[in-house]
Amino acid sequence: MSNELRDQFLTTPPAIPLLETLDSPEALRQLLPAQLPQVAEEIRQWLLYCVPKTGGHFGAGLGVVELTIALHYLLNTPDDAIVWDVGHQCYPHKILTGRRQAMLSMRQKQGLAPFPSRSESPYDAFGTGHSSTSISAALGMALAAGLQQQEKRCVAVIGDGAMTAGMAFEALNHAGHTQANLLVILNDNDMSISPNEGGLATYLATNHRATTEPQLDGRTTASLFEALNFTYTGPIDGHDFAQLLPALKQVLNQPGPQFLHLITQKGRGFAPAEADPVGFHALNKLESPSQTDASVSTQASTQASTQPSARRLRFCNHFARWVCQQAQEDLRLVAITPAMREGSDLVAFSQKFPERYFDVAIAEQHAATLAAGFAVAGCKPVLAIYSTFLQRAYDQWIHDIALQKLDVLIAVDRAGLVGEDGATHAGCYDLAFLRCLPEMLLLTPADGQETERMLAFAYQHPGPAAVRYPRGTAGELPQLQQAPPLPQAHLLRQGSQAALLNFGPLLPQALIVAEALDLTLVDMRLVKPLDHSMLKRLQAQHSLWISLEDHAQVGGAGSALAEYLQQEHADNALLILGIPDRWIEHASREEQLAECGLDAAGIEAQIRAWWASSPCQHKREK
Amino acid sequence: MSNELRDQFLTTPPAIPLLETLDSPEALRQLLPAQLPQVAEEIRQWLLYCVPKTGGHFGAGLGVVELTIALHYLLNTPDDAIVWDVGHQCYPHKILTGRRQAMLSMRQKQGLAPFPSRSESPYDAFGTGHSSTSISAALGMALAAGLQQQEKRCVAVIGDGAMTAGMAFEALNHAGHTQANLLVILNDNDMSISPNEGGLATYLATNHRATTEPQLDGRTTASLFEALNFTYTGPIDGHDFAQLLPALKQVLNQPGPQFLHLITQKGRGFAPAEADPVGFHALNKLESPSQTDASVSTQASTQASTQPSARRLRFCNHFARWVCQQAQEDLRLVAITPAMREGSDLVAFSQKFPERYFDVAIAEQHAATLAAGFAVAGCKPVLAIYSTFLQRAYDQWIHDIALQKLDVLIAVDRAGLVGEDGATHAGCYDLAFLRCLPEMLLLTPADGQETERMLAFAYQHPGPAAVRYPRGTAGELPQLQQAPPLPQAHLLRQGSQAALLNFGPLLPQALIVAEALDLTLVDMRLVKPLDHSMLKRLQAQHSLWISLEDHAQVGGAGSALAEYLQQEHADNALLILGIPDRWIEHASREEQLAECGLDAAGIEAQIRAWWASSPCQHKREK
Repeated sequence: MSNELRDQFLTTPPAIPLLETLDSPEALRQLLPAQLPQVAEEIRQWLLYCVPKTGGHFGAGLGVVELTIALHYLLNTPDDAIVWDVGHQCYPHKILTGRRQAMLSMRQKQGLAPFPSRSESPYDAFGTGHSSTSISAALGMALAAGLQQQEKRCVAVIGDGAMTAGMAFEALNHAGHTQANLLVILNDNDMSISPNEGGLATYLATNHRATTEPQLDGRTTASLFEALNFTYTGPIDGHDFAQLLPALKQVLNQPGPQFLHLITQKGRGFAPAEADPVGFHALNKLESPSQTDASVSTQASTQASTQPSARRLRFCNHFARWVCQQAQEDLRLVAITPAMREGSDLVAFSQKFPERYFDVAIAEQHAATLAAGFAVAGCKPVLAIYSTFLQRAYDQWIHDIALQKLDVLIAVDRAGLVGEDGATHAGCYDLAFLRCLPEMLLLTPADGQETERMLAFAYQHPGPAAVRYPRGTAGELPQLQQAPPLPQAHLLRQGSQAALLNFGPLLPQALIVAEALDLTLVDMRLVKPLDHSMLKRLQAQHSLWISLEDHAQVGGAGSALAEYLQQEHADNALLILGIPDRWIEHASREEQLAECGLDAAGIEAQIRAWWASSPCQHKREK
Repeated sequence: MSNELRDQFLTTPPAIPLLETLDSPEALRQLLPAQLPQVAEEIRQWLLYCVPKTGGHFGAGLGVVELTIALHYLLNTPDDAIVWDVGHQCYPHKILTGRRQAMLSMRQKQGLAPFPSRSESPYDAFGTGHSSTSISAALGMALAAGLQQQEKRCVAVIGDGAMTAGMAFEALNHAGHTQANLLVILNDNDMSISPNEGGLATYLATNHRATTEPQLDGRTTASLFEALNFTYTGPIDGHDFAQLLPALKQVLNQPGPQFLHLITQKGRGFAPAEADPVGFHALNKLESPSQTDASVSTQASTQASTQPSARRLRFCNHFARWVCQQAQEDLRLVAITPAMREGSDLVAFSQKFPERYFDVAIAEQHAATLAAGFAVAGCKPVLAIYSTFLQRAYDQWIHDIALQKLDVLIAVDRAGLVGEDGATHAGCYDLAFLRCLPEMLLLTPADGQETERMLAFAYQHPGPAAVRYPRGTAGELPQLQQAPPLPQAHLLRQGSQAALLNFGPLLPQALIVAEALDLTLVDMRLVKPLDHSMLKRLQAQHSLWISLEDHAQVGGAGSALAEYLQQEHADNALLILGIPDRWIEHASREEQLAECGLDAAGIEAQIRAWWASSPCQHKREK
């Protein structure tokens, strides 16, 4: 980030004379309408001060400052419920609901969560993080209020990006059939994280984006949502209290499903963010300009094309490099992303191979089955998707791809613990939910070069395959330069005390511990199928095994080894190291790993404790 | 089924002088247009003869006879691709594509699959079974054809019921943005399996159902799909070749995404099915009128209210009985189904508690998050869903329910092998994909009374819980009448040779084998959490353990035991019995179980073989 840009953020606390008197929405509701623009201005100042300090989502919050104020002003929160879709835009809401000072702890261990969280505040009616859940959740609350004969008002605030996901449509389709007092507010800013794709986006853009004038006669948009039995109001300028307050008051007083269409601007009030809403979707912390990650980024780096040195490349950059090179060699390759061009680092691919690049909008289910269609027709689809979002395409992966043995490769990004985004975004279950499927090929690279090798290997495999890699910097371990050909496991060190079987990116920690404890160390590389010849060898050599993975202990690679040992009638003892069976809250990835005992010190301590147990002693002595 | 109704089916082969000359679509394409109505008539005769013999989907096929003929007549199949959404309607297509005689083997082991299957015929462009995948798949094929500069035409045929699922909308939204030569045919018959729910259904009904006249000016429907950038044509009478052929020819010649809206009638040409399309959605075989299942049914029984004797009740009937009784006692209970009122046996509930009954249409993602919204608002939601369809709500279960520790109960029906519907509908992975999640409560009842007990227990548990039960008759095992209170495991037999740990409905088989081999038999009841005090006892008593489940061997309950044994440093040997790591094709459930070695004989044989292995001998001798 340039210094000029950096200077536009606030480094000292701004004066917020009005905002600092507002410790709850109750206080806000005592103000005169004429005071609200000042509240908006002070919230923006506070965001410009806080977010660069902690990192976090930026543009979306700036876009809903007026809406957030208006909602809390007119609703009786927390008895009335606001569900913020995805939650990227919830920062002004947190500021207004007693968490203004706590904003400085955002995304830190024990600090504020980066998304709405029911355990954090009664004003957070529903926890979010994944997109397009808000209408379903708010509808459930509204129907419950109806059954309980309560006057409660339930509001879903959803962006046009999130409207492309099927579940939002499912919820609209159901809601229109009910009498629920549900208000859906479309926060129409022409953006998801990347620019929107798809017919709906084109449609909204063509018909309404041009104007921010109130047009209660916007007939075409109206007919779309009225077709689903909603009462449509809009489009309304979402930054003008003079329009916003009366429109909101009106729709809140009308019975049945209401749809309010607002036009807003992502990044509103901060010129650089208005000009580059993709780049300013989120900020990284500004304290450490030397850090690896780009300072201004979407969830991942937007800087792929600048190609830092190999040791600085992120795992997703290695994916980017491989996929571009493979596409050059193989005209059959097509790449698919569900609205994660920047996050999955497909920017360069989209520029070099625009005709083979398919951004399907936030639509994971469709993305997977589209890939199946491509595979049937002789293309070789590569689906780039985060582990946590693959959960949305699980049935399609099983039913459309795996069962038909179609040649689709998923590049599973952000696998394992993801750090500051917290439990909603963690990808801790993919090995469990994929390895139960027949004929899966499942690979876990430990560094950058292995990521590229494994992608190439999985791509050549004529069937469903997944390569899972984590968030963050990949590095290139010198020990992996001479890895044996895949799918063989890789013996890295011969030791005397026990065998450490590594699956994935905790290998640097494993190397340290193996040295310290004189362990045999094997990088297993594949979770499915397991390299049986390597396992047979280890069986004979070591009565004690330790498995290591950046995945839930339950059901993961260690579990596969436990099954294997039983199948082989082997009585080797196995210690399964991985993410313990609980939800891991947001913190830095390093802190999360330490919390799980998965840093080098934690791994060593867990092994020593296991050794000290008497049954283990017994086995060691044999 | 009454005898009068039975008499209307054909018991001897009908005369099909024209159809029997048509061994491929190539032959069909030699006919004159004027001959096509006779082909249609003969196909209907053939369906009336075949389907009662084999059982299978009935009404949907009758509704698309003319469309199927018209498509194969005008397209150059199999080079052009037809993707049949869900596949319930594919029987006429199978008849016309060389499988007329083979129809008599439908749903039988080694016989025709009940859905399109790529391994069965090159005319089956895409395997289906779950709904709403067709547009995505056909779009993938059409985009691939564009890249490959082929003239191939790709057609998705989708019912209005399947249009309610989000992924259909995701696909439409994407397709409209492309230049793909994709034809989407809406087969609008006002039905899914149950009558349709939701705004879209109301909308289509209000605007177009009344007429079967061609109305190329149907402006309102047109605007909905035109909004998504499709060229809209319709509505057209889907049973009138004089309208159908020219309309189809026209849309096939237009470039870009095309949408053709047909009005058809489910069950067309068979008066009883026209009158009762829900009842005639599928037929069971007619040979054995004494069999337990109702002869005319949807995928499950529609006969819940007739209440056969306890030993004849199906698992879903026990769910029905429990949920009605619980709803009587607890006003907070709400029941949610994604368009499976009959299948999940919620008919009685929907009649007794209409205000607390929510059919959300085919919309599994929404169903789960709606349940989350209800739970947040103080209701106690029960989500009835098939195991195979729960795969579509996996992310919502994790992100919206489990992570927020919300009090939602899923009644997971059709878990394990499902028989004739085959691999697309098998529910073999739920234990693997649910048990990896923290704090899950996972129960596996072995019979009817246990199903009701476990539902009651899980309902009282203040957090996410799932009870999984299979398709078919539940029975009431006398041994389970005096089960200990949940969550305790149940010791059923003390033996000397080994411990057999049962999870779920294979208990009758387990009882036989335990007797034959003098095994200790424990019904474990819960997969998560495991009853550790029972396991400790068994550890001391038996060096040899066998686990038994109607679930994939990989990642299921046996895998949980393998993890447990390692965690406890125990060296008990474990044989994991379950569904082997391959796809299990359609056959009767009994045949499938036998094929997997999960009938009593197979279980005994697997245990004996294990015992005979030398490491096991060694353990037995110790």
